Amino acid sequence: MADDQRTQAAAWFRTLRNDICAAFESVEDALTGGEHGSLPAGRFERKRWQRQTAEPDNLVQDMDPAAPLVNGGEIALMRGRVFEKVGVNISTVQGRFSPEFRAQIPGAAESDGVFWASGISLVAHMRSPLVPAVHMNTRHIVTSRGWFGGGADLTPMFFDTPETAEDKADFHAAFQKACDMHDPAYYPKFKKWCDEYFYLPHRQEPRGIGGIFYDWLDDDWSRNFAFTQDVGRAFLNIYPQIVRRRMQASWTPEQREYQLVRRGRYVEFNLLYDRGTMFGLKTNGNTEAILMSMPPEAKWP
Amino acid sequence: MADDQRTQAAAWFRTLRNDICAAFESVEDALTGGEHGSLPAGRFERKRWQRQTAEPDNLVQDMDPAAPLVNGGEIALMRGRVFEKVGVNISTVQGRFSPEFRAQIPGAAESDGVFWASGISLVAHMRSPLVPAVHMNTRHIVTSRGWFGGGADLTPMFFDTPETAEDKADFHAAFQKACDMHDPAYYPKFKKWCDEYFYLPHRQEPRGIGGIFYDWLDDDWSRNFAFTQDVGRAFLNIYPQIVRRRMQASWTPEQREYQLVRRGRYVEFNLLYDRGTMFGLKTNGNTEAILMSMPPEAKWP
Repeated sequence: MADDQRTQAAAWFRTLRNDICAAFESVEDALTGGEHGSLPAGRFERKRWQRQTAEPDNLVQDMDPAAPLVNGGEIALMRGRVFEKVGVNISTVQGRFSPEFRAQIPGAAESDGVFWASGISLVAHMRSPLVPAVHMNTRHIVTSRGWFGGGADLTPMFFDTPETAEDKADFHAAFQKACDMHDPAYYPKFKKWCDEYFYLPHRQEPRGIGGIFYDWLDDDWSRNFAFTQDVGRAFLNIYPQIVRRRMQASWTPEQREYQLVRRGRYVEFNLLYDRGTMFGLKTNGNTEAILMSMPPEAKWP
Repeated sequence: MADDQRTQAAAWFRTLRNDICAAFESVEDALTGGEHGSLPAGRFERKRWQRQTAEPDNLVQDMDPAAPLVNGGEIALMRGRVFEKVGVNISTVQGRFSPEFRAQIPGAAESDGVFWASGISLVAHMRSPLVPAVHMNTRHIVTSRGWFGGGADLTPMFFDTPETAEDKADFHAAFQKACDMHDPAYYPKFKKWCDEYFYLPHRQEPRGIGGIFYDWLDDDWSRNFAFTQDVGRAFLNIYPQIVRRRMQASWTPEQREYQLVRRGRYVEFNLLYDRGTMFGLKTNGNTEAILMSMPPEAKWP
């Protein structure tokens, strides 16, 4: 039964990855204006990686791209004309946490450090400073316990514009709807968690305009999995809509400069505070996949 | 006596700052070739900041730039034609470490968290990818104990060139000389410490070609202070020499692109691993001063 759950979760993350990549490529096709309308539409490039562990029996030789992931991941990276750099990664890894890391992970002490984890992680940095950047991640982790976590948050470059107010309202509405289908307590709780998590104390600044963040959801596997799927579907529905309505507008060099500075804040958050980044680097994850969240260009003038 | 030591140390860091800024401005004046020889020579801009603490009696109202620092710092920042961005910061701060931070700092538990710290910190990011970036920092910290620490390390963009081999040899020779004047055991020990410290495990890459790194030097105040002064003098002597002999050469757009990628590694190191950055952010330091080490522009393509 537990094996079947893992298979279902991993298969979902792959399906969602495929759907998102298709939706983003379709957005690339739809660009007609802006500063880069004459560039070719972008396409994702995919790459498989296998996790190297200290235990040789965990190594997998099968690199058939159609085969399910056993202990590795797939990077899908697009450098497009709308999406300046977007990474959509899935991974399914298993192994043993180091003793010092076990205390921080629920149920890991009881599993003697043994874990299994599968998830999807996405960060999009856009060419236009008028199109918000976005992050989405959902995951299923199993130790002696098993839980779901994830969320999505939007990072417009300009916080105080009517466009941002509209994007913020629609982004939140999409995730509130996904939450409310499952539990009316979810949205207020997960919105607050997101605001608290995506905050830069040293700047006294929020990273963006929020979204939802949840973790350690383990009260009912089927319900929690269904909710995690709906979070993915909400993202797939709302973010391409927001991109499409903003991407045709032209921007100024000053707006681009400001975008590059805002991206510096994104770098600061991910390297100083992000748990996912730390988790990945400490569990011998794939550095290229983990740091795909870095913006293609950033400035600290 | 302890007050007199603090005064001497703080005065030295200020003198060194003045000498370094003058030397760097003189380098700016000397540029005739390269890609930016026609730009105006850069000049440092200085800014004072006061530390805000929870204890109002630590606040200092005197903003006279000639007055010694009591609980704050001075940022000197130059955006020049040779130095794309260089920050030379001095600070003298005092206060009380938070309980969770005390355990990590020698003598802080015994001082009930009370500390005094003064130092100079410098990071230079150069326009030319053929001129190495550099970092230098020395400091005197007092809790119930008192010690000196610091060092300097060089980050060429290209590791395997004859020019880098020459720069590396001269940079190391300068600091070896400073070390050997004080203790023949210093250089091998502090060189190794530097190599170990400035290393990116997730990339399995050194940050640069090393230099020296030392800390917790507390066996003899006068000797340790004299050594710290000689480290500063060695830097003042060697780095402008290296810049001057490299800065006139032209570079290609491909070399510039590579430089921007290498700068991404610099960002990763400073935000993921650097103790000074963490110390600054956790002791309510000045964020602008701490993150002045960030490069003006970086890429993760």
